[in-house]
Amino acid sequence: MKALRYYGARDIRHETMDDPVLQGDGDALVRMTGCSICGSDLHIYHGHGFSEDIGFCVGHEAVGEVVEVGRAVRRVKVGDRVMAPAAVGCGGCGPCLRGQVFACENGGAGCYGLSSRLQGVLAEAFRVPAADMNAVPIPEGVTEEQALLLTDAMATAWFGARQADIRPGSSVAVIGLGPIGLMAVDAAWIMGAHVVYAIDPVAERRAMAAQSGAIALHPDAALETIREATHGRKLDCVVEVVGADATVDLALRLVTRRGTVSVIGVQQSRRFAFPLERAFAAGLTFRIGTCSVPEELPALFSLVQSGRLRPERYVTHRLPLSEGADAYRRFDAREAGALKMVLLPD
Amino acid sequence: MKALRYYGARDIRHETMDDPVLQGDGDALVRMTGCSICGSDLHIYHGHGFSEDIGFCVGHEAVGEVVEVGRAVRRVKVGDRVMAPAAVGCGGCGPCLRGQVFACENGGAGCYGLSSRLQGVLAEAFRVPAADMNAVPIPEGVTEEQALLLTDAMATAWFGARQADIRPGSSVAVIGLGPIGLMAVDAAWIMGAHVVYAIDPVAERRAMAAQSGAIALHPDAALETIREATHGRKLDCVVEVVGADATVDLALRLVTRRGTVSVIGVQQSRRFAFPLERAFAAGLTFRIGTCSVPEELPALFSLVQSGRLRPERYVTHRLPLSEGADAYRRFDAREAGALKMVLLPD
Amino acid sequence: MKALRYYGARDIRHETMDDPVLQGDGDALVRMTGCSICGSDLHIYHGHGFSEDIGFCVGHEAVGEVVEVGRAVRRVKVGDRVMAPAAVGCGGCGPCLRGQVFACENGGAGCYGLSSRLQGVLAEAFRVPAADMNAVPIPEGVTEEQALLLTDAMATAWFGARQADIRPGSSVAVIGLGPIGLMAVDAAWIMGAHVVYAIDPVAERRAMAAQSGAIALHPDAALETIREATHGRKLDCVVEVVGADATVDLALRLVTRRGTVSVIGVQQSRRFAFPLERAFAAGLTFRIGTCSVPEELPALFSLVQSGRLRPERYVTHRLPLSEGADAYRRFDAREAGALKMVLLPD
Amino acid sequence: MKALRYYGARDIRHETMDDPVLQGDGDALVRMTGCSICGSDLHIYHGHGFSEDIGFCVGHEAVGEVVEVGRAVRRVKVGDRVMAPAAVGCGGCGPCLRGQVFACENGGAGCYGLSSRLQGVLAEAFRVPAADMNAVPIPEGVTEEQALLLTDAMATAWFGARQADIRPGSSVAVIGLGPIGLMAVDAAWIMGAHVVYAIDPVAERRAMAAQSGAIALHPDAALETIREATHGRKLDCVVEVVGADATVDLALRLVTRRGTVSVIGVQQSRRFAFPLERAFAAGLTFRIGTCSVPEELPALFSLVQSGRLRPERYVTHRLPLSEGADAYRRFDAREAGALKMVLLPD
Repeated sequence: MKALRYYGARDIRHETMDDPVLQGDGDALVRMTGCSICGSDLHIYHGHGFSEDIGFCVGHEAVGEVVEVGRAVRRVKVGDRVMAPAAVGCGGCGPCLRGQVFACENGGAGCYGLSSRLQGVLAEAFRVPAADMNAVPIPEGVTEEQALLLTDAMATAWFGARQADIRPGSSVAVIGLGPIGLMAVDAAWIMGAHVVYAIDPVAERRAMAAQSGAIALHPDAALETIREATHGRKLDCVVEVVGADATVDLALRLVTRRGTVSVIGVQQSRRFAFPLERAFAAGLTFRIGTCSVPEELPALFSLVQSGRLRPERYVTHRLPLSEGADAYRRFDAREAGALKMVLLPD
Repeated sequence: MKALRYYGARDIRHETMDDPVLQGDGDALVRMTGCSICGSDLHIYHGHGFSEDIGFCVGHEAVGEVVEVGRAVRRVKVGDRVMAPAAVGCGGCGPCLRGQVFACENGGAGCYGLSSRLQGVLAEAFRVPAADMNAVPIPEGVTEEQALLLTDAMATAWFGARQADIRPGSSVAVIGLGPIGLMAVDAAWIMGAHVVYAIDPVAERRAMAAQSGAIALHPDAALETIREATHGRKLDCVVEVVGADATVDLALRLVTRRGTVSVIGVQQSRRFAFPLERAFAAGLTFRIGTCSVPEELPALFSLVQSGRLRPERYVTHRLPLSEGADAYRRFDAREAGALKMVLLPD
Repeated sequence: MKALRYYGARDIRHETMDDPVLQGDGDALVRMTGCSICGSDLHIYHGHGFSEDIGFCVGHEAVGEVVEVGRAVRRVKVGDRVMAPAAVGCGGCGPCLRGQVFACENGGAGCYGLSSRLQGVLAEAFRVPAADMNAVPIPEGVTEEQALLLTDAMATAWFGARQADIRPGSSVAVIGLGPIGLMAVDAAWIMGAHVVYAIDPVAERRAMAAQSGAIALHPDAALETIREATHGRKLDCVVEVVGADATVDLALRLVTRRGTVSVIGVQQSRRFAFPLERAFAAGLTFRIGTCSVPEELPALFSLVQSGRLRPERYVTHRLPLSEGADAYRRFDAREAGALKMVLLPD
Repeated sequence: MKALRYYGARDIRHETMDDPVLQGDGDALVRMTGCSICGSDLHIYHGHGFSEDIGFCVGHEAVGEVVEVGRAVRRVKVGDRVMAPAAVGCGGCGPCLRGQVFACENGGAGCYGLSSRLQGVLAEAFRVPAADMNAVPIPEGVTEEQALLLTDAMATAWFGARQADIRPGSSVAVIGLGPIGLMAVDAAWIMGAHVVYAIDPVAERRAMAAQSGAIALHPDAALETIREATHGRKLDCVVEVVGADATVDLALRLVTRRGTVSVIGVQQSRRFAFPLERAFAAGLTFRIGTCSVPEELPALFSLVQSGRLRPERYVTHRLPLSEGADAYRRFDAREAGALKMVLLPD
């Protein structure tokens, strides 16, 4: 089959690789009908990935049709239309059964497409381990494209807003307006924010956030503008979606006494200079981590089905898988108008 | 001064009565600049009030300007534009200080206009006891009319939605579409409902709810329609805003397993036939009570200031106080187009 | 095999019946090594059961050793020491996977021993449907007898205390001091109650509660004593463990403003006279329902393993299964000293 | 009057200073009947205080009798036995009224004894600003010494345990076993911990924690021991009570996936090396801040009155105020057997 494979920094190729096969009784094979590139894939694209492997298939956002299942699989069957949440659990321990994949007791909290160990899903087909848990049937009233966005981006945005303790009446900032940040703005509104500040250096992305009702600010102006607008009080909840020291630092400056900072940008910093003294005086909650996708799905399915959430608005490109390498390049360049790029079978 | 006074069932008169005077060091006197009729005032209008008194001034929703304060008053001063929350606390005990008026430890959880003990506020002026607590300065960005609606109606609607455990993604029904019910629909959306069913026998009120995005149903059709639409699952949260046995019973039928019923309609039933067996099998939460207005104000002020909540949409009449008796009659008759009736100084 | 079978009111017999067999791929067969009689079994014993069937095996509390599994079972295997939670789920839907058996979307929230449909467990062996969910391996540090008490009694007591909103510093009453009520007293302490009132007409049971640090009261004296002791304020949390109208009514009288009543006694009343007017004035939360056992197990296992919870203290009898009919009779008679009766293989 | 005054590092003197006087209508003067030294006072003692002032009176834990009140004071009167919570609010804004002093909107979240601006309470008498809020009558059933411990130490310990998200069944560590740390161990038990690890380099303090049922560990052994005991899982909740970079770092190493670290030791570090990468992978909640004492009092009063909390156990010395300078020296030296030192009028 054809797949997008990693060969080094900025070197993704659309090439032939072996078809996936069942490796365990609980596995399923899925024929891809849609997949997409995540902002966190750029870590790998830049050569700062999580393994030294070469040639593995990349990506962790996909939907498709089940074409084969192991004999222990009970909840999905051949022909089912499924989504594959990015966070992969063992499917058997207590936390996994409750949907809390990232607390998996068997070290199962993996992710597709980080190394050869678990191949990615930007391919004509892919293997899903522990398919009873990791292949989720797409419910009625949710399109394949919507489900694709729920495999990671929209679920992560939702989780980030949740762990920021957003309540009806809260004031909120979202730092970083890629697809996940823009979806976090939408999530903040649904959770009852009375105001949402959306912060990004790219004017075009700020314009998108403004269309969603946010007050859009350049990072350089954010602290001063928010301090004035709030008469020095600052904000209840800040969601950081970038993954850089500077944006985490900004988040800690924007939050009010007894407020909450939620960090969901992928962090690779080992010695961030945390202002303990200031945080102690303010009485902060600082939450950091990533999303156990299945845990978020019940609420998200309802909100998508009823039309309150429309993450598909952020899909700007629908391209054939064979143009995937080029899509990576354009997405990485923050090409004008490029937000979520979906790849379809050729 | 002139005031609306109660003389028996359906006999409210616009008459002269003594000007209010300070009765304690903590009191304030307020010149009314706006007041309004609450659905619960109709209990009194129908002669089913809470006292045998005659001639007392009615009503518990008003805003105005402070014209005199006792010497122990510290937080408001003459000239302040204030609102008078309907729930009146002692202002001194722990629960009152936290805004939880209805847990007042000194029996202070009174209300204006139920008897001669604490005169009503549908008058040219009124007395506010423990004014440091019970007279709330209207913040910038909130109009007097909006503040008037926050003294009871919008605060009660908000509380009713809160105690129904509405979460992002919940399915909701609101039973009873007077002003409070319609505001509860708005509250449900802000709290993240993915669907809101709005139930009332009056077609015009259903039409208003539909304009707010709710699915409007006649009570006779509600159970069957909702059961079908949800494939038998029914709803997470039901808010009852009527105060009748039949509507409480309907609420208990509409809620799903482990769901919550919130009753905020004023209840005078002493032996409601509660289906314990069915509720036990379903695992229900049943909450009943009324609103400690000050507790709800911080979130409501923010949401009104930012324009997310616009309770003033439900004001259908603005009449002089001298037409108050007629306003009661028309409101009681559910005259076409009559929702919230505001009375202004002549 | 031998089993305890129901033949009509007060007619339980220790008789031979067919050995259980696997009925589905997900089933397991378990050789009983310990089982026990629950207070709710007395409904059946009195002839007020939930079916018209005759001859079925009774009981829903048991532990044992797995002796056979269907080919789709993955989490338990032959030889495992397991407990069988009383609440039986389908094991496949979202709520079941999260342990919320009573919200099972496939109608799976059954219970052993109510009819011939799902035979009871007071037998030499029994069948567990959907064994991956419904047969729970007994963790290290938990004895078989402790696990037996966690299949229903201790889990239900814990759930009842949880749904009463007991917080550190709460004042609590428990009404009904059978084994579950006594365990609810223990649960209240662990959740931080500062005082626990324990109410029962049987002096001996009150004495047991007093040994656990509770203030023991006869129901006739409870309201007056508690009103005085709390200077009229009454209690934050009341747990009803009886299942009678009179005790639910008492619970509603003992609770303070904005307090919570939790009803876990099995209720068969269809028209309980609920005091809506009084509850409205007080602002109550009324929760009623039964326990999704698996949801409670993680916390309970930890507390039992560390010795903070010792539910085995309430086992007063350990008898052979062949004396089960007599055990029913003695338990029903509230024979002096009879609390939890455990039956062991002959 | 006589008072303990600060004259530089390790130079506290028992000297005469001017009697306190009312400075505002809301103030009260209190004759000290008991006061105590807090671990955080050692920052000042070491010369690392929060001001350059010389000669101010130190300390922030005291109880006494009201001897004079301003004319706007309503809730306390001359002769009342009161405690003075260490956190001093303006007493007029919303957060203060709710007891959340540290979110005071008027910059009121001060503390006694940090500078000349608000003199300390280790004196024969002291001034309480906004006395309606900041002087709390000691309720019946609470001794003066218990109330003294609730002005800061026990309240801070309780807050620290609360913000660690301790739930019934949690596993907990407390790092630092001065009086606050030992009280945090007690708090953890009341909140339902199933196990508490208590960590301190001083053997004698570990022995005290062991007497309270904790598993006492030296910091050097803590990580390894806990990792083994929990089979690598580590702990749900960690409370840091020291205020050093090394102990915050240890806290972050001891907590499990999705666990919570609560930091209540006074922090003066501005660039703590926070391991974002590791925290992101684990999904942590990190809370840091100090206690709004009045917010914690209702629960604490109940627990002390009923005897479940006995913070007075940690009082090791009761000395006359005139020996205060020596008491500072002995406390700072961690003299054998010195935990909480109470100073009484001579």
